Amino acid sequence: MQTTINMETVEVEKWLNWLSDFGATKNGGVTRLLYDDSWIKAQLALKEKMIEAGLRASFDSIGNLFGRLEGTEIKEKAILTGSHIDTVVEGGKYDGAYGVVASLLAVKYLYEHYGLPKKTIEVVSLCEEEGSRFPLAFWGSGSITGKYKLEDTKELKDANTIPFHTAMESAGFPPSSQSAARSDIDSFIELHIEQGAVLEKEKQSIGIVTHIVGQRRFTIKIAGESNHAGTTPMKYRKDSMHIASELIVYAINKVAEIDESLVATVGKLTVSPNVPNVIANEVAFTLDVRHHQEEILDRYCSIIFSHFENLCLEKGTGIEISQWVNVKPVKMDENLNDTADRILQDMSIPYKKMISGAGHDSQMFGTFCPTALLFVPSSNGISHSPSEFTKIEDLKNGVIVLIELLHKLAY
Amino acid sequence: MQTTINMETVEVEKWLNWLSDFGATKNGGVTRLLYDDSWIKAQLALKEKMIEAGLRASFDSIGNLFGRLEGTEIKEKAILTGSHIDTVVEGGKYDGAYGVVASLLAVKYLYEHYGLPKKTIEVVSLCEEEGSRFPLAFWGSGSITGKYKLEDTKELKDANTIPFHTAMESAGFPPSSQSAARSDIDSFIELHIEQGAVLEKEKQSIGIVTHIVGQRRFTIKIAGESNHAGTTPMKYRKDSMHIASELIVYAINKVAEIDESLVATVGKLTVSPNVPNVIANEVAFTLDVRHHQEEILDRYCSIIFSHFENLCLEKGTGIEISQWVNVKPVKMDENLNDTADRILQDMSIPYKKMISGAGHDSQMFGTFCPTALLFVPSSNGISHSPSEFTKIEDLKNGVIVLIELLHKLAY
Repeated sequence: MQTTINMETVEVEKWLNWLSDFGATKNGGVTRLLYDDSWIKAQLALKEKMIEAGLRASFDSIGNLFGRLEGTEIKEKAILTGSHIDTVVEGGKYDGAYGVVASLLAVKYLYEHYGLPKKTIEVVSLCEEEGSRFPLAFWGSGSITGKYKLEDTKELKDANTIPFHTAMESAGFPPSSQSAARSDIDSFIELHIEQGAVLEKEKQSIGIVTHIVGQRRFTIKIAGESNHAGTTPMKYRKDSMHIASELIVYAINKVAEIDESLVATVGKLTVSPNVPNVIANEVAFTLDVRHHQEEILDRYCSIIFSHFENLCLEKGTGIEISQWVNVKPVKMDENLNDTADRILQDMSIPYKKMISGAGHDSQMFGTFCPTALLFVPSSNGISHSPSEFTKIEDLKNGVIVLIELLHKLAY
Repeated sequence: MQTTINMETVEVEKWLNWLSDFGATKNGGVTRLLYDDSWIKAQLALKEKMIEAGLRASFDSIGNLFGRLEGTEIKEKAILTGSHIDTVVEGGKYDGAYGVVASLLAVKYLYEHYGLPKKTIEVVSLCEEEGSRFPLAFWGSGSITGKYKLEDTKELKDANTIPFHTAMESAGFPPSSQSAARSDIDSFIELHIEQGAVLEKEKQSIGIVTHIVGQRRFTIKIAGESNHAGTTPMKYRKDSMHIASELIVYAINKVAEIDESLVATVGKLTVSPNVPNVIANEVAFTLDVRHHQEEILDRYCSIIFSHFENLCLEKGTGIEISQWVNVKPVKMDENLNDTADRILQDMSIPYKKMISGAGHDSQMFGTFCPTALLFVPSSNGISHSPSEFTKIEDLKNGVIVLIELLHKLAY
């Protein structure tokens, strides 16, 4: 089928610009937070576009928007395709939005060119993924897949102390007993920007994601002794800054010995009292560790933390390790990936199989139904910023692959 | 003479408590800043005490207070003894104050027991050493020794934007053309708390300072690249936090190879953007290096900075090293130290020769006239805190040694 797709008719750039007007900021970014005014307007406008495209559009009880193209043969289960509509504060116009727009364009194209599918397809504009308004991420996909329930959000408030349920109500989704969970999902297919620089650096247009990494985050606190930087000989010091630096060097250098796909980051560090001529009493730093295999995460964490504890014991300083994120790795569907693989080979689009180092809605669906996640490159790896950018050829390649994939699955 | 000193009559604790009332804080500390109300009251009260002790008391043009006991034979040159009256914000009652009180008690004792000396002695309560109100330290000793002039302070303002000269005027010292510089100083002798834990740890009552260290302070900025902690493989990273940690470990570990008396401290570190899941773009840290020999400081700095630059070149990150403190080491007077040494040996007071890792007024006098600096222990090495403490026996030992030393020099 691929040879017949007319690239000119895939107006992905125009549609992305149109969608980015909802919540557009002065700096050229987009701020569209769950249940806020720009979010409501964007979802309602997308609903209109779905209807114009001939889909049966409807919201569920929490604000996920679906555009359904009923299958002629298999109606009970739907192939779901889409991504999320919400953004971070001052985000870009691609993260989430690209997947929503691409899915709608793909299904619109298929309907226009091939009529109704055999299997039902639904485009979805998920209500929330970023966790940028309330302290909860994946609200949309988590609800559809039954991982979140309404009562999980009862106590949540945003930065202006507006309760989650009040925000729902004012957006037109009064909390109701009707569950958003679905049991009729055949599979989930998501297009998303990479939010990293691997595809660009390796000159690939599409990434087929094989796994979404597991994530663990820790805070490590070293308790030494504050002393005068001039009058305390080196032998009498319990210098938290020195110890913390040794631990960081050890943790980062150890990564390469464990596995090539493992990543570890110390992104945040605070020193007390943080004065040039006083030896640091306490240093606290975060450690973010990601890999797609639990056993690698286990092995790495066990090696470095046992070293951390031994070194602190030896130096006579206190150490406190606390974990505050523990997300398990999720595997994408091999059959769907094989199909995408064949399509990309046939079309001679440069692509690679890769790990997603960031979380996505596909992570919620991945343990619920066969799921595929496809990436397009992010210029300089930048995302969550008004400078997010993906070249038009890559955006179009993504849509074309999605058209092909849905055609193979549903027609 | 030593056997005749009656310890009971040396009321050092009582006098220290009395002085600490001027500027006493709720937390049991002392805040007495240059030219502020508590400072004025303390200097005027000390002037009264000097007069009561039979000394001729007078202020110079900037607020240094002198109590003169005129010599019967040598009048042209005066042995100066004392320390500073000002404190840090929420400081203790020993730093500076002990040296002022001890000198006054010693000279009072000598006059009461031996009458007028052959050589003139002056007790001095220096107006400022800490640099805690205005961004200038050693204003008192620096002015007497001709290192500072009135015009150096013309532009200075305190945290409440009060100009230095306005503060002088309201304290009763209107800026005048009369210089505070003196050319009649025979020698300077200072008693001070150690502000470190060496004497306590080594169970010594007195420290004879042979050198005051030179100090160099630097800020080192590493410029890497901010990236997503999940989507950026280790091989594509320019992680400022990792590089900075390597440099800190190198710098601190290198100290032991260079010299036992060398100290190096990274007390302050800031990370940008300082977010757990973002690779740090920039890390800036301070390095405070101290030693009593310039060539050791030169050697250490040259070795580590050349390593710093090579490593950053290799890793492709930027590095910027800027120096913002450069204080040269100062040697104390060997003859005065030998005299103190003999006195301590004769009296069987446990003492050690040591380096001062902190700056003191003696550092200004040390390049100007023969100078001796003697330390008493600081409990747990604590200073610049309401918890400053020195045992009464040590405080008394300090005064006794000062009495003996002044007796040997002036009688």
